[in-house]
Amino acid sequence: MTPMSATAEALAAPLPAVDRTPGALGWPVTAALRALAMDAVEQARSGHPGAPLGMAEIAAVLWRSHLRHNPADPAWPDRDRFVLSNGHGSMLLYALLHLTGYDLPMDELKRFRQLHARTPGHPEHGLTPGVETTTGPLGQGLANAVGLALAERTLGAQFNRPGLAIVDHRTFVFLGDGCLMEGVSHEACSLAGRLGLGKLVAFWDDNGISIDGKVEEWFADDTPARFVAYGWQVMRVDGHDPAALDAAITAALADTEHPSLICCRTTIGRGAPTKEGHQDTHGAPLGPEEIARARAAMGWDHAPFHFPPEIYAQWDARKAGAARQQAWEARVAAYERAYPSEAAEFRRRLSGDLAEGFASVFAAARDAAMDKRETVASRKASQQALAALAPIVPELLGGSADLAHSNLTTYPGARPVTRDPAGNQVLYGVREFAMAAIANGVALHGGFIPFVATFLVFSDYARNAIRMSALMGQRVIYVLTHDSIGLGEDGPTHQPVEHVESLRLIPNLDVWRPCDAVETLEAWRAALARRDGPSALILSRQNLPGQPRTAEQADAIAAGAYLLRESEGCVRAILVATGSEVGLAVAAAEELEVKGIATRIVSMPCRERFEALPETARAALFPRGMPVVTVEAGVTRGWRGLAGMRGGGLIALGIDRFGESAPEKDLWPLFGLTPAAVVEAVKRALG
Amino acid sequence: MTPMSATAEALAAPLPAVDRTPGALGWPVTAALRALAMDAVEQARSGHPGAPLGMAEIAAVLWRSHLRHNPADPAWPDRDRFVLSNGHGSMLLYALLHLTGYDLPMDELKRFRQLHARTPGHPEHGLTPGVETTTGPLGQGLANAVGLALAERTLGAQFNRPGLAIVDHRTFVFLGDGCLMEGVSHEACSLAGRLGLGKLVAFWDDNGISIDGKVEEWFADDTPARFVAYGWQVMRVDGHDPAALDAAITAALADTEHPSLICCRTTIGRGAPTKEGHQDTHGAPLGPEEIARARAAMGWDHAPFHFPPEIYAQWDARKAGAARQQAWEARVAAYERAYPSEAAEFRRRLSGDLAEGFASVFAAARDAAMDKRETVASRKASQQALAALAPIVPELLGGSADLAHSNLTTYPGARPVTRDPAGNQVLYGVREFAMAAIANGVALHGGFIPFVATFLVFSDYARNAIRMSALMGQRVIYVLTHDSIGLGEDGPTHQPVEHVESLRLIPNLDVWRPCDAVETLEAWRAALARRDGPSALILSRQNLPGQPRTAEQADAIAAGAYLLRESEGCVRAILVATGSEVGLAVAAAEELEVKGIATRIVSMPCRERFEALPETARAALFPRGMPVVTVEAGVTRGWRGLAGMRGGGLIALGIDRFGESAPEKDLWPLFGLTPAAVVEAVKRALG
Repeated sequence: MTPMSATAEALAAPLPAVDRTPGALGWPVTAALRALAMDAVEQARSGHPGAPLGMAEIAAVLWRSHLRHNPADPAWPDRDRFVLSNGHGSMLLYALLHLTGYDLPMDELKRFRQLHARTPGHPEHGLTPGVETTTGPLGQGLANAVGLALAERTLGAQFNRPGLAIVDHRTFVFLGDGCLMEGVSHEACSLAGRLGLGKLVAFWDDNGISIDGKVEEWFADDTPARFVAYGWQVMRVDGHDPAALDAAITAALADTEHPSLICCRTTIGRGAPTKEGHQDTHGAPLGPEEIARARAAMGWDHAPFHFPPEIYAQWDARKAGAARQQAWEARVAAYERAYPSEAAEFRRRLSGDLAEGFASVFAAARDAAMDKRETVASRKASQQALAALAPIVPELLGGSADLAHSNLTTYPGARPVTRDPAGNQVLYGVREFAMAAIANGVALHGGFIPFVATFLVFSDYARNAIRMSALMGQRVIYVLTHDSIGLGEDGPTHQPVEHVESLRLIPNLDVWRPCDAVETLEAWRAALARRDGPSALILSRQNLPGQPRTAEQADAIAAGAYLLRESEGCVRAILVATGSEVGLAVAAAEELEVKGIATRIVSMPCRERFEALPETARAALFPRGMPVVTVEAGVTRGWRGLAGMRGGGLIALGIDRFGESAPEKDLWPLFGLTPAAVVEAVKRALG
Repeated sequence: MTPMSATAEALAAPLPAVDRTPGALGWPVTAALRALAMDAVEQARSGHPGAPLGMAEIAAVLWRSHLRHNPADPAWPDRDRFVLSNGHGSMLLYALLHLTGYDLPMDELKRFRQLHARTPGHPEHGLTPGVETTTGPLGQGLANAVGLALAERTLGAQFNRPGLAIVDHRTFVFLGDGCLMEGVSHEACSLAGRLGLGKLVAFWDDNGISIDGKVEEWFADDTPARFVAYGWQVMRVDGHDPAALDAAITAALADTEHPSLICCRTTIGRGAPTKEGHQDTHGAPLGPEEIARARAAMGWDHAPFHFPPEIYAQWDARKAGAARQQAWEARVAAYERAYPSEAAEFRRRLSGDLAEGFASVFAAARDAAMDKRETVASRKASQQALAALAPIVPELLGGSADLAHSNLTTYPGARPVTRDPAGNQVLYGVREFAMAAIANGVALHGGFIPFVATFLVFSDYARNAIRMSALMGQRVIYVLTHDSIGLGEDGPTHQPVEHVESLRLIPNLDVWRPCDAVETLEAWRAALARRDGPSALILSRQNLPGQPRTAEQADAIAAGAYLLRESEGCVRAILVATGSEVGLAVAAAEELEVKGIATRIVSMPCRERFEALPETARAALFPRGMPVVTVEAGVTRGWRGLAGMRGGGLIALGIDRFGESAPEKDLWPLFGLTPAAVVEAVKRALG
């Protein structure tokens, strides 16, 4: 092991040669991992044996000698977190879970990658006990781990009391070359270094191989030097040497000021006699002959999917885990006696429930907003919502990608964790992707509701992490400001025209585009109250008029669409609008009334919610055969489908091209989004 | 200046203090830049003065003493490329273009950020002469610059001959802290270091400030060490010291083996007496008082938007540029005499035209594919297309993000540039975002048609760069394989269900989802022939049956939608399908025929092309009032709008939730995509 205090020269020095004798493979503890990984991939005729074989010693040392967990209770809040960022190596994780005693019977391993098995191709949180996060998209598991470690430290700072550390666990993450090549690894690890997340330990499977072959041809970074530049503790070890690994982990945990990277020189597919060290072991079964020879080399003669009891005994973590959890529960009990109100709050925080007082605080805020009916940018209304609600939602852990004063995500009581470890804001820097993936880690950890903010157009940078929030059903709130052409002069690079619709395509993501302060408040409530997935709040840079509405109408906002305004007389057309275009629709309706044309305005701040309504509720808003004009300052594709629903004609007004740089006031007419244009469209719709 | 040969210690040593005396601002050459930037932002009441003021000396030294360009001909192929990756500093670039003699009159600068001015909020390629790439989304300009440098080196290796270097220019890029925080900077710079792009010189505006304030709270990387770890030459200078800058640039250009990073310690907003060094100068006008005092400090007493002739004289680059271009033209003439066929090919390559022989090579390939009517994965068909077409398209510069053997982007004659500098493939590593942004740079450079490949689901990682291809109208071809649930066991993290529709939302991007080898060939032809924007080819992992069709039908593929098959008798419904679901639709149509229900099958490999057809052509495919059933293994939102068009009912079959991990054969029935389900849907539609 080369310790952190080493100079750059020492970090660059050659490692001792890997022991290539067969005996080096003879550790039954790792033989079990290797055999199971080979057999399961072979049986599935699909999967990735390379990483499980290459990381067997690392996994064995970490899971047997260091990881604090209780297989009987995968939800134990103070367990260490383990993340397999190189998620394609899922069989390694399933093997570890099975062997250490999680509720993952061998039958599930035999069904690796089969329909409805709990052993899917990549680890899926929520499907398999002990899987802390869904991984596979490279680099994001590493960023999730940063989020887990950040949540642990922050929750501990908020709740721990002298002698009563009820939050005190570590985060371990395995990663491959692919994770390190991905840009998100830079963002996440640079921030982790700055934050000094000392209880985060990463293991790099430094095998020199990625799918296209030997990485040296496309990846020649001096990775140890790179991580030293981030402020990490960096060590280098032979990744097949249990003693060296053990010492490195001990040293990593001893340094509580810096995250640690343990660079583990390994051989991919280690143990496959003819294939080890080659990319062919990465993502395909090894074949029966190779497996037979590997078994012989390891001295492993048990039937596939069979382990002798002594192997289980060597891996079983249940007893130690139960003892650990009991000790923690005793600590929590002592805490409860000493700090009863903090303990109650701690339990509430872990439960994910909102505070009891939330409803009344919210009601007061909404009443005030309804009374005021302010003309205000929805980003500003969002800030007002935060100011009103944050005191009753201390579990908020918010932040912005270097745009706090543009996204308006600061509020009285917001304190960066860099200034107060018990704070509630993260200054993420210009790191949208990592920010979102870190927020996923924070949400997965529990005890927090993370929100993250950037310009809507840069949701692109974070897109796959937003998808992962949705796939994992995590309560992450995306505050996306500077919607559409309303941001004006910054021009097409900054004007999101396709982004709202594009976010709506992600399953299980609620996209809110509120039209004023009251809808913004309701969007925040919906996002905070939602337990099973993320929400995106699409907010304007420019001022939006406050709409008059009754309390009943305000209550209806949560349904995603509601009748905001109806002309006297026989309604002949429906105007559907969202966000900044609701005011436009109202102005058009007023003009139409003058011309004797009565319309109904449906405000639809959340199309996902609307679409989830019962058919009768939807039909009530859209009388059969009545023409519909939709108005939204973005691509129209998603609106065209409204027509079919009720048989009326449909005209969708929007922006089906890129924006332009100019003051806002010049852009609305340029893109045909004016009251006059809406009036024209209604007339056309009426034929 | 601290040279590259310096040790890490020397790179970390403190710089000499910046001269803070007013006299240091008295260089009229930079005073002109500063005054213009301040005045234009003030007049627009919008914009970013901080970077132009802070980088004035850097810009002056680079543009006056090193940059080889000809303002009279911004399209001169052998000009040095300049990229402003911190694109918000656009006024700096406009000032430079104006002062050095580009066709950008002062009237345009007075209209900074106004409607239809050639001085938009962020630099836009194609709108303003001399703007090499559209920047603003942070980090991507840097990656574009890597692409420009890569294209220069590769084109030079392909065409230069001893003593006749007709391709020999450099790429310079300005970048800020934000660019360095973005993950794409890691991906691009790691690869640039590995590729040894020695003619790439980056200038980091190291001002310690980003929008949220002093970056040290969220960005504490040792950036010089980080870039040394990438294999770059790294220098540190006082960014307000012209002599030091000049020496650093000279040293950077002298090292032709490594890209260079010049870390320029600067003060943001330098010259604003009370505001310099503060984030408030970043993105807001300084105000008339501050500007007056800045002018006084610089000894600059000219009216706003007015420069005396001696200032223009000191900046004017037209004469030197014309001389350089003439010298180059003489070199090209000599080349033409010595290598007439290479010279003709060089001109063709720069023109962007496909080779004359392309049409016949394509026709032969298509005839062969039609004869063979092979059952083959469309990714494999794409590889066959490349094998057939690449010999006549030597301008291809392709590559994959570490998935060459999954994306099937290799072909006979593909040679990585790491093995042959005149090669035609880039081994991008696991770097999707940089890959796409680099491809944008390659396309912008000219002489190449770049294609880049990854799994479709990871188009998310590259999404904003794909958007930038479309916004800039660049011919970049995205090869996106492993479409939808057809990839099977890898599960929902790898199964793109919303991605095809999501890509279709990006304006000016053609999305092709071919159903067999012939459609795949046609998609490649369309993508190669297209001059005004990017194309995405969505390809299957699994086998797809070859469809029978006439030559006329094959010709119609290019229209984006065509009648593939029609039952005998009176057609009662239309089946619209794309890609892997065309085979499904055909199987369903056969079953329906047995039941006496005649259908028409419209294959719609490119909805964008279809929507661009004249109304009559679209109407011909969709007889009025006839029910439509669409089938695509992805979210259905985008298909629902087809209904309104012609008044028929519509049922959209697809996948409106995340996928699952299982063998492909088990997934199709699970998601209701079987011939029987299509038959049922048609019956319901006729219902």
